Amino acid sequence: MAVLLSTLATEIVIPVAAVIGIVFSLVQWFIVSRVKVTPGRHAPPAGPNSNKNGFNDYLIEEEEGLHDQNVVAKCAEIQNAISEGATSFLFTEYQYVGVFMVVFAILIFLFLGSVEGFSTKSQPCTYDAQRTCKPALATAVFSTVAFVLGGVTSILSGFLGMKIATYANARTTLEARKGVGKAFIVAFRSGAVMGFLLAANGLLVLYITINVFKVYYGDDWEGLFESITGYGLGGSAMALFGRVGGGIYTKAADVGADLVGKVERNIPEDDPRNPAVIADNVGDNVGDIAGMGSDLFGSYAESSCAALVVASISSFGINHEFTSMLYPLLISSMGILICLITTLFATDFFEIKAVKEIEPALKKQLIISTVLMTVGIAIISWIALPSSFTIYNFGVQKVVKNWQLFLCVAVGLWAGLIIGFVTEYYTSNAYSPVQDVADSCRTGAATNVIFGLALGYKSVIIPIFAIAVSIFVSFSFAAMYGIAVAALGMLSTIATGLAIDAYGPISDNAGGIAEMAGMSHRIRERTDALDAAGNTTAAIGKGFAIGSAALVSLALFGAFVSRAAISTVDVLTPKVFIGLIVGAMLPYWFSAMTMKSVGSAALKMVEEVRRQFNTIPGLMEGTAKPDYATCVKISTDASIKEMIPPGALVILTPLIVGTLFGVETLSGVLAGSLVSGVQVAISASNTGGAWDNAKKYIEAGASEHARTLGPKGSDPHKAAVIGDTIGDPLKDTSGPSLNILIKLMAVESLVFAPFFATHGGLLFKIF
Amino acid sequence: MAVLLSTLATEIVIPVAAVIGIVFSLVQWFIVSRVKVTPGRHAPPAGPNSNKNGFNDYLIEEEEGLHDQNVVAKCAEIQNAISEGATSFLFTEYQYVGVFMVVFAILIFLFLGSVEGFSTKSQPCTYDAQRTCKPALATAVFSTVAFVLGGVTSILSGFLGMKIATYANARTTLEARKGVGKAFIVAFRSGAVMGFLLAANGLLVLYITINVFKVYYGDDWEGLFESITGYGLGGSAMALFGRVGGGIYTKAADVGADLVGKVERNIPEDDPRNPAVIADNVGDNVGDIAGMGSDLFGSYAESSCAALVVASISSFGINHEFTSMLYPLLISSMGILICLITTLFATDFFEIKAVKEIEPALKKQLIISTVLMTVGIAIISWIALPSSFTIYNFGVQKVVKNWQLFLCVAVGLWAGLIIGFVTEYYTSNAYSPVQDVADSCRTGAATNVIFGLALGYKSVIIPIFAIAVSIFVSFSFAAMYGIAVAALGMLSTIATGLAIDAYGPISDNAGGIAEMAGMSHRIRERTDALDAAGNTTAAIGKGFAIGSAALVSLALFGAFVSRAAISTVDVLTPKVFIGLIVGAMLPYWFSAMTMKSVGSAALKMVEEVRRQFNTIPGLMEGTAKPDYATCVKISTDASIKEMIPPGALVILTPLIVGTLFGVETLSGVLAGSLVSGVQVAISASNTGGAWDNAKKYIEAGASEHARTLGPKGSDPHKAAVIGDTIGDPLKDTSGPSLNILIKLMAVESLVFAPFFATHGGLLFKIF
Repeated sequence: MAVLLSTLATEIVIPVAAVIGIVFSLVQWFIVSRVKVTPGRHAPPAGPNSNKNGFNDYLIEEEEGLHDQNVVAKCAEIQNAISEGATSFLFTEYQYVGVFMVVFAILIFLFLGSVEGFSTKSQPCTYDAQRTCKPALATAVFSTVAFVLGGVTSILSGFLGMKIATYANARTTLEARKGVGKAFIVAFRSGAVMGFLLAANGLLVLYITINVFKVYYGDDWEGLFESITGYGLGGSAMALFGRVGGGIYTKAADVGADLVGKVERNIPEDDPRNPAVIADNVGDNVGDIAGMGSDLFGSYAESSCAALVVASISSFGINHEFTSMLYPLLISSMGILICLITTLFATDFFEIKAVKEIEPALKKQLIISTVLMTVGIAIISWIALPSSFTIYNFGVQKVVKNWQLFLCVAVGLWAGLIIGFVTEYYTSNAYSPVQDVADSCRTGAATNVIFGLALGYKSVIIPIFAIAVSIFVSFSFAAMYGIAVAALGMLSTIATGLAIDAYGPISDNAGGIAEMAGMSHRIRERTDALDAAGNTTAAIGKGFAIGSAALVSLALFGAFVSRAAISTVDVLTPKVFIGLIVGAMLPYWFSAMTMKSVGSAALKMVEEVRRQFNTIPGLMEGTAKPDYATCVKISTDASIKEMIPPGALVILTPLIVGTLFGVETLSGVLAGSLVSGVQVAISASNTGGAWDNAKKYIEAGASEHARTLGPKGSDPHKAAVIGDTIGDPLKDTSGPSLNILIKLMAVESLVFAPFFATHGGLLFKIF
Repeated sequence: MAVLLSTLATEIVIPVAAVIGIVFSLVQWFIVSRVKVTPGRHAPPAGPNSNKNGFNDYLIEEEEGLHDQNVVAKCAEIQNAISEGATSFLFTEYQYVGVFMVVFAILIFLFLGSVEGFSTKSQPCTYDAQRTCKPALATAVFSTVAFVLGGVTSILSGFLGMKIATYANARTTLEARKGVGKAFIVAFRSGAVMGFLLAANGLLVLYITINVFKVYYGDDWEGLFESITGYGLGGSAMALFGRVGGGIYTKAADVGADLVGKVERNIPEDDPRNPAVIADNVGDNVGDIAGMGSDLFGSYAESSCAALVVASISSFGINHEFTSMLYPLLISSMGILICLITTLFATDFFEIKAVKEIEPALKKQLIISTVLMTVGIAIISWIALPSSFTIYNFGVQKVVKNWQLFLCVAVGLWAGLIIGFVTEYYTSNAYSPVQDVADSCRTGAATNVIFGLALGYKSVIIPIFAIAVSIFVSFSFAAMYGIAVAALGMLSTIATGLAIDAYGPISDNAGGIAEMAGMSHRIRERTDALDAAGNTTAAIGKGFAIGSAALVSLALFGAFVSRAAISTVDVLTPKVFIGLIVGAMLPYWFSAMTMKSVGSAALKMVEEVRRQFNTIPGLMEGTAKPDYATCVKISTDASIKEMIPPGALVILTPLIVGTLFGVETLSGVLAGSLVSGVQVAISASNTGGAWDNAKKYIEAGASEHARTLGPKGSDPHKAAVIGDTIGDPLKDTSGPSLNILIKLMAVESLVFAPFFATHGGLLFKIF
């Protein structure tokens, strides 16, 4: 059955959408760049075509210190320090990443090559023995290449995101002099640069890779898309470094800076006298920006690969229907266009005039993109799919209608929105859960922690039901392909999601720069307002990330099972059950490692900060400058070192289990770590977010209730600060890192599946 | 094939062992009763046959205040108050329990009776259609009766345990005047009374029930042992009230007393001026004694029932081999005898002379009982089993050798020991993990909490591997029967385990009484030493409880699946997978409820304690007496009320899921909650235990390192107190309650399996 969209049109539409995304992000970057941080020169007058939020508009709040060149110079200096610190960390990280990638690439080649003993002869296809497929050696070679490409794209995405974020932070601070609306636009546009670059790059590289590989593979789509899974593995492996390394970095610096600065020396957050303050700001960029970017890129790459590999052995692949085959990429292309329109709602169609409009504006972004995207998905499903087709379902072909597949994608998309809103409800101090936690600070830190933990536990209920419903719907309609496209649906608005998400750390940095540059209290208040909204959106972003990670890893799990040629994973067999219970344990092991890592790295930072306060005369008085660089170096070294054990756990578990215990036990491990890890990740992120905002709620004192708990320095506030500090590693290190645990183990298993199926289960073979 | 032990011998051996256990516990009780708490009369002179630790022995430490009749009178008074408070709570609880039992009994009858439409006609057997079995209505009636019997036995066990504990606490205090060894013996003997009574009662009632039911059922063993599962459900349902209600009670009182007393008023723990002090001591008895007792009784009853129901459809049941059929009860009989011998090692063969000998003595109990029991299991397996037999394995009969079954039981037994030791390692302040946590208090409460949480997460690794290995071995050898007997193996030394466990709260109470009676600092030091050892053994007990709960619920799960006539639980079906992920979420939901419950109940207590301090003149000065009874009442009312939501979650989930979604989804829920709940329970218990002992480590100041952190009232100590308070609900309420969650849902599913299999899955039937 022919589809409306021709192969040629598909070949054009996808790269064009990607290029539009890239161009749009460059435009946003250009607009941001017009805020000058070079002292002595004013912003050039905007032309008559300058857009509505440009520089000639009426300034809604009074301008402040606009002509103080010292401030601009200071901002530029701080921005440079942060940017240099971030760049230096990332480059150090990339050295290790480079070594890892080479070793792992060799491993992939050897493991996959050994499946058929490095034979160069073509062989009968796995799923269609009538036909001839390319040799396993080709899969080994191309998987390795795809792995490297995925890794490089991920690195690029994270690096560019970090660059634009450190480019935008001081600009946001400077714009805050003109008003909160101006500052918001700069921060949000910069987030959009990152979001669109990442989405478009990911799509473009994947598209090109498929087309290049196709030159060799020709009609052997089974082998082609098996090799493509390497792209997902590459993306996810880099995310491990980004999330875990970046997560440890940011929280070691943050906790270290707070413990000495706020607690011992009683100086405010982001005070320039604190030697760890630059490291803290660097951390926001490498952890929350670069780490988050590589995490979501990994999810995106993996869900696309999972969908493609299942499609290749379904009717799309068997009948070589190119347009339908690339349905996942078409969804992403549509997503870029929809997000582009959505962005205009925040930057051009409406204008933020007051603090209280910020959070609704960001929330509107989510709603608008979801509603528009639902229509977008319907269009793609209508023009790119035959009305009926078959999907591979663990050994049998299942008939699926195009409207069913539309529902699969849509249910994922909407589940994402629900997860986002539930996360907001549990972590924003506008609602009762966080206010209850703040209230519990009355009786001390202990009750604060008890209530906070209970809140986190409670906050998993609805997201899990949302995930369960989307799994049930998509699984029932279209088996594992349904799950993969549901994940893609959730990620289809990734550009908007990332824009919102990146906005948070940029605002956070902007506040830090304002404080360090000695700008007035009013400026800091404005950036704080931006930051508070950013905290909630960061929690929403984490909700999306873990929700999509759950769907992605289930899809990968399904693809792994298909590729390993097992048709049932029966809990009622000892092999599977022990896998299940040990798998469910892994998130705890992993979290113990990452939390301990943050603790140890933070203690090193504490020692250094104390040392500087004790040995540098005049530091507390502000007459001498601290040695920022040493703190940056300590964070860098500690996080790289501390990243190795948890990284090894994730990387080695599938290899060891698959090789020694075989594919059944590995299936159990994947299912167990998935169902258990999701809970730990959601509860950790939300507990941490709630503590952070409970503290901010008391500090802001915006309501009668909040004022009875404050002000800053009161006993309840001190209790709230303790909760906030505990929450730091939970919400920014151990929680989000679990996404990587569950996804990476699954995609690794998928890539190595042919090896495990052939040579795995050594232990059982011996006994 | 005939077995060595004849049917007649079996009929004699089991009740005799049970009676020996009961007599032994009465003897222990008699010895304890010889310590007099009636003032004015001295202990009667012991006869020439008085045992080695009797009253004529040389007193190893100097006697103190032996003739102060005031002290004795005061101890008696306090003991009475505690005993009355505990009795009043339990009776209030039993009123609710009574209503619940009647309603649930009716429910069981209706659900099970409806399977065959309340027909009174005999029907073909489920597993052997050639033969005729009793009608489903009989199963309904007898299951209901067994349910009531299980419930009553559980109540009796908990109540008697509480009675002996409140009988022994003041006696321990008084004996502490003579020396730490004397006090230890009293506390330990009292623990033994509880341990042996519970083990023997449980065995005896089960044995009698089987024999009485057999009069009706005759040769229909399938129906007979299906009905017997009601006994497990009854035991476990009461455990829900005991564990959850008792857990909320004890921690509401404890946290409430500490928050006002220690934190706000700066008076020591157990100070008689604190109005909540009696409620706190009552809590130890209803939570840690009655709750723990009913929990372990539930595990014991359930694992026996799970083993019996699987055996009834295996060759034992098909061929009507009575001795082999009762193998689980024979193991328990042997366990009572072995534990009896083990107890003598602590009370008669050796003598405790110094504080540092207490912990090793308790640990030796575990090792001795495990080693001896291994031999005991070997003997039972040799005389009670044919050399080869078959076990029902999800539709097929699997051939098992007697030595394989021996290994199944033994692997469970030894896994229990390993879990016990790992728990000790992570919660005793003799080892580095707790010392590291204590050390982290240097940088404040936040790092203490981070390190404590990380410790708890880490402490799950080895126990999970131990559980996984025992599951793998027993599952591979003898399917679900193997799992059930592995659980029984872990519980075979339950009498010793409970003795050690009950010893802790008794010593804790003894310390409280010493403080309240105004006894000298030296006495308090001795009871503190007993208590410190008790903390660790309590953690070990919790480790056992959760480890056995994991095996038990897997066995119940297997029995449920067998009875529901499904042969695979395939993760790769949407019905099962959504069950799995939602099931994995339930422990979080449940924990959120129980933690919030403790928080709310504690806040009510805080208000009342504050009110009394503010309104009763002379209370702080010690000239006026507080109103203890009101605090007891508040704890009682709050815990009963707060228990309902988590209780409803546990009770209703299987009914709702089974009825609406059917047995596949319910299987997923059971597996998910099992693999996820075990992790949460272990980490919560150990985190709490570690914080408690980190605080005690700083307070005791026994090492150079500990002294740098202390003394009491130092900043690190304050941070440690915060950790301890957070840990209270984790280790004594939410953590241990999870045992009940996973067991009760499984046994409930098992009992209702015929109904779900016939009428379940309504939602899927409609669509």
